[in-house]
Amino acid sequence: MEKKIITISREFGSGGRTIGREVANRLGIPFYDKELVEKIALESGFAPTFVEEHGEHSPGRTRLSYAFSHQGVPGVMNGLSTADFLWSIQCSVIMQLAEQGPGVIVGRNADYILKDRKDCLNVFIHANDEFRADRIVRLYGESEKSPQTRLAEKDKRRQVNYQHYTGQIWGAAQNYDLCLDSSRLGVDQCVEIILSLLK
Amino acid sequence: MEKKIITISREFGSGGRTIGREVANRLGIPFYDKELVEKIALESGFAPTFVEEHGEHSPGRTRLSYAFSHQGVPGVMNGLSTADFLWSIQCSVIMQLAEQGPGVIVGRNADYILKDRKDCLNVFIHANDEFRADRIVRLYGESEKSPQTRLAEKDKRRQVNYQHYTGQIWGAAQNYDLCLDSSRLGVDQCVEIILSLLK
Repeated sequence: MEKKIITISREFGSGGRTIGREVANRLGIPFYDKELVEKIALESGFAPTFVEEHGEHSPGRTRLSYAFSHQGVPGVMNGLSTADFLWSIQCSVIMQLAEQGPGVIVGRNADYILKDRKDCLNVFIHANDEFRADRIVRLYGESEKSPQTRLAEKDKRRQVNYQHYTGQIWGAAQNYDLCLDSSRLGVDQCVEIILSLLK
Repeated sequence: MEKKIITISREFGSGGRTIGREVANRLGIPFYDKELVEKIALESGFAPTFVEEHGEHSPGRTRLSYAFSHQGVPGVMNGLSTADFLWSIQCSVIMQLAEQGPGVIVGRNADYILKDRKDCLNVFIHANDEFRADRIVRLYGESEKSPQTRLAEKDKRRQVNYQHYTGQIWGAAQNYDLCLDSSRLGVDQCVEIILSLLK
C-alpha cells in the first residue's frame, strides 16, 4: 500500500497528536498541526488563536461569534458564516498540503477533505476516559472544570463539527482505515502499527 | 499486552471470519465460529441452523418467531423471548470458552460479553461495499437479492442486535481496541497487525 499522507483524527487527550508527531519524525516527513493552524490563519486573515479555537468546533457556536468578530470586514467572507468560511479555507489549505508531498495531518477533518485521494492512510485514535483525563491534566494542567467535563465538551464540539461538514459520524470505524485505542495498546504501539503499514 | 482471547466483530463480507481463522491457525489456538454455534445450539436445544440464523439478528424479528417455534416447550425458556433466551445462553457459552483458555471468537457480541476481562483483544473488521459485494458473491454465490441488499440487510440485523443487547453502537471505534478496513489494508495485512499485537 503506497500511502504518503497520514491523517490522524483523535479524541481529546488520547495522544493522537503525540502519535502523529512521532510517526512524522520517524518517517522524516512534515507534521501539520500548529503549522497548519498558522497557515489557515494567514490565508483567512484570522488570528491563529481564533482559528485554533474554532476550526474544529461546533458550527453553531462559531456562527454566534460571527456578528461580533466580523462587523468590520463586510464582503471578505463572501457571505459565508465564520465557520463556513474557515471550513472552505481549511479544505483548500489541506488539499494544497497533500499536493506538496508526504506529511502527517492531525485533526481538521482531513480524512474527509482528502477522501478522493488514494494515497492517504486515515487513522482514528481514541482512549478510555481515565487515560484521557489523566493525560490532559498532565499536559495542559488543571482548570476550573473537571477533566471529565473538559473531555465531554471538546469531544462534543469535534463531533458536531465533523457531522456538520462531512455528513458522517465522528468515530465510526467505517470512516477510517485504522482505529486504535491508545489506552489499551499504548502510544508507542500505535506508532509502530502505523509505521508498519507504511513500509 | 497479554491478550489471550481475540474477539472479531465484522461487517458481512469484510473477511473478518477468514482473518479470525488465520489468526487462530497461526497462533495454534481454537477458532470459535461454527463450533460456537453448535455449542450454543446444544445447550439451548435449538437446531444449529436456527441459532446461526437468529443469534446475531434483530431481536424484534426473532420475537416474532417465538410463538411459532416454542409452543411445544412452555417453561423451557423461563419466560424469555427466543432472542433473549438465545442471548443468555450465548453469554454463558462465550464466558465459559474464554475461561477455558486462548481462542479467537468471531461475532456474537463477544467483545461486549467479555468486556470485564482484561485479556481480550477486541477487533472490528469492516470494508467498503464494492469489496464486500464481490466477496459474498464469490464465497456464498448469487441470490435473488442484489449483493447490496444482502449486505444492507445483514448489517442492519447485526446493528440492531448489538445495540439492543449492549446499548452501544455497532461499529463505533470506541468499542474496540482495533478497527481495520480490510478493503484498504488487505486481509493478509489485517492478520499481521493482529498477530503483531499478541507477540
